[in-house]
Amino acid sequence: MSEQSDKSAGWVTFDPDLKIVDCTVRDGGLCNAHNFEDGFFKGVYDTCVAGGIDYMEVGYKADKKLFPGNENGPWKFSSEEDIRREVGENDTGLKLCAMADTGRTDLNDILPKNESVLDLIRVATYIHQIPAALEIVKDAKDKGYEVALNLMAVSTVPDYELDNGLETLHDVKEIDFLYVVDSFGSLYYEQIGDLIERYKKTGKTLGIHAHNNQQLAYANTMYAAINGVKMLDTTMMGMGRGAGNCPTELLVGFLKNPKFNLRPILDFVQNTMHPLSQDIDWGYSIPYMITGHQNEHPRAAMALRDSDRKDDYVGFYDEITSI
Amino acid sequence: MSEQSDKSAGWVTFDPDLKIVDCTVRDGGLCNAHNFEDGFFKGVYDTCVAGGIDYMEVGYKADKKLFPGNENGPWKFSSEEDIRREVGENDTGLKLCAMADTGRTDLNDILPKNESVLDLIRVATYIHQIPAALEIVKDAKDKGYEVALNLMAVSTVPDYELDNGLETLHDVKEIDFLYVVDSFGSLYYEQIGDLIERYKKTGKTLGIHAHNNQQLAYANTMYAAINGVKMLDTTMMGMGRGAGNCPTELLVGFLKNPKFNLRPILDFVQNTMHPLSQDIDWGYSIPYMITGHQNEHPRAAMALRDSDRKDDYVGFYDEITSI
Repeated sequence: MSEQSDKSAGWVTFDPDLKIVDCTVRDGGLCNAHNFEDGFFKGVYDTCVAGGIDYMEVGYKADKKLFPGNENGPWKFSSEEDIRREVGENDTGLKLCAMADTGRTDLNDILPKNESVLDLIRVATYIHQIPAALEIVKDAKDKGYEVALNLMAVSTVPDYELDNGLETLHDVKEIDFLYVVDSFGSLYYEQIGDLIERYKKTGKTLGIHAHNNQQLAYANTMYAAINGVKMLDTTMMGMGRGAGNCPTELLVGFLKNPKFNLRPILDFVQNTMHPLSQDIDWGYSIPYMITGHQNEHPRAAMALRDSDRKDDYVGFYDEITSI
Repeated sequence: MSEQSDKSAGWVTFDPDLKIVDCTVRDGGLCNAHNFEDGFFKGVYDTCVAGGIDYMEVGYKADKKLFPGNENGPWKFSSEEDIRREVGENDTGLKLCAMADTGRTDLNDILPKNESVLDLIRVATYIHQIPAALEIVKDAKDKGYEVALNLMAVSTVPDYELDNGLETLHDVKEIDFLYVVDSFGSLYYEQIGDLIERYKKTGKTLGIHAHNNQQLAYANTMYAAINGVKMLDTTMMGMGRGAGNCPTELLVGFLKNPKFNLRPILDFVQNTMHPLSQDIDWGYSIPYMITGHQNEHPRAAMALRDSDRKDDYVGFYDEITSI
């Protein structure tokens, strides 16, 4: 690394500015089209409150006109009504956020902050969508929210294009948090470090959202925290699309800040997540390793894992690496 | 880090001096007292040859007088006769090694090199056993072998004691390879980096043997390789005691040296290791995470995983953290 933090991890683990964002319902919901059993959302919420987690992501703010029918559960849309049914006025220290996908969001679905229990809007975008993403960013900031920009699939973006995009973001004062997102789980620490240095030039507070295709989600999140990233995305037992994410319990066990409390998180993992993991396939497996190594979207691995040849590693490898 | 390699990983992944040591039979054998089915050893061996692996560890050279009876399989003892039955004269590019535990080895069981197909003797020792370990080291070197010293459980050794021990090793010319061993899977990259810098002062070629309690075995092994460590221990599908080790397939997929070949390794993982993993419990799980975070020997977690309350994470956490 060209530039290392002069803070040791011993210091970083106590850093009061480190925030954990639990994305279990939002990213985990990609495993079951957000069709969780009754009580699951409240379980995550209560666990986040008891565990001292800083933010909980309740789901997406997707446009219902684009996703008609009953295929998707309520956290694909995260209506104010549904959120309040679970959390009331959210009279806790836990902040709530929702993700707005660029191109899939109707700005009318995002209420003014003073009418919502949401605190933070996270705008997800590919590099070529940045102008459209900034419309959501500015709208959310005007309405009174904290705003994050999550730049997806950066591992496939050429350096010059990324630097141009980041230069654009530098001047957007409405962005509070800018996220390094390893969508394909293809990055290791040197690459994460390189992105952090580039993203720091925007002057924004940084976040990281990692995927576990190479068993590196926790390692990369820890590395990011030690090197100045403040917003750390996790999910309970790592539940998330494909290989999943940095497990909340692993990161909380590492951080020493007494605001965090591992025991209620372990309780939820034991009694809710572990049983759920017997029914839904998420987390590291060899097909996800292969797409991670190849820097490819995990969709082919997800299809394999959902088929009757889920452990045909060699056949999958041959397909993915065929010319 | 006080001192970083000026080589990027892009360079390191091609480094011809990086060697992979597959420990599946030796460390994986700790999961089943080395009672593998017929054909397993040969399967690992053939896979290592086809995969371009540099060394295969065949097992321990334990003293049969200390382990009487039939509880342990043949790779607890790794007699020359048993090895040759599997590999003949080992007329391949794959080197073979065996582990000699300090205090559990009869020097008479280690033949002169010119009578053995073994190439490397790895001497495992705790810090307080170093004088006894050096007797094995010198005997093995006198007999003509390459020799490694694996210093176990270093995460519990005070710095001044470690530095004294390393100073002793500096002058032992019979040691070819000195191993950083994360016995409890409790270390993360900054700590690995600190140990590497201390160990480098001995002037030895370094190795790393990692455990996966915190999903960091691969991350730490990769970090070590990028920071100058040359001997990288792995096991097929990460099979090893407790949380297991750095998976061979993950590391081979990362390294770009064309001598390595992922496909035969995936074939063995698919057809042998994956079915075996349905019968034997190894690899990351929450109880191993807990002992890793606590820097404790995994034996309590192993006992839990072998009991009828294997997923009682909260009960186990309460036991481990009780005062």
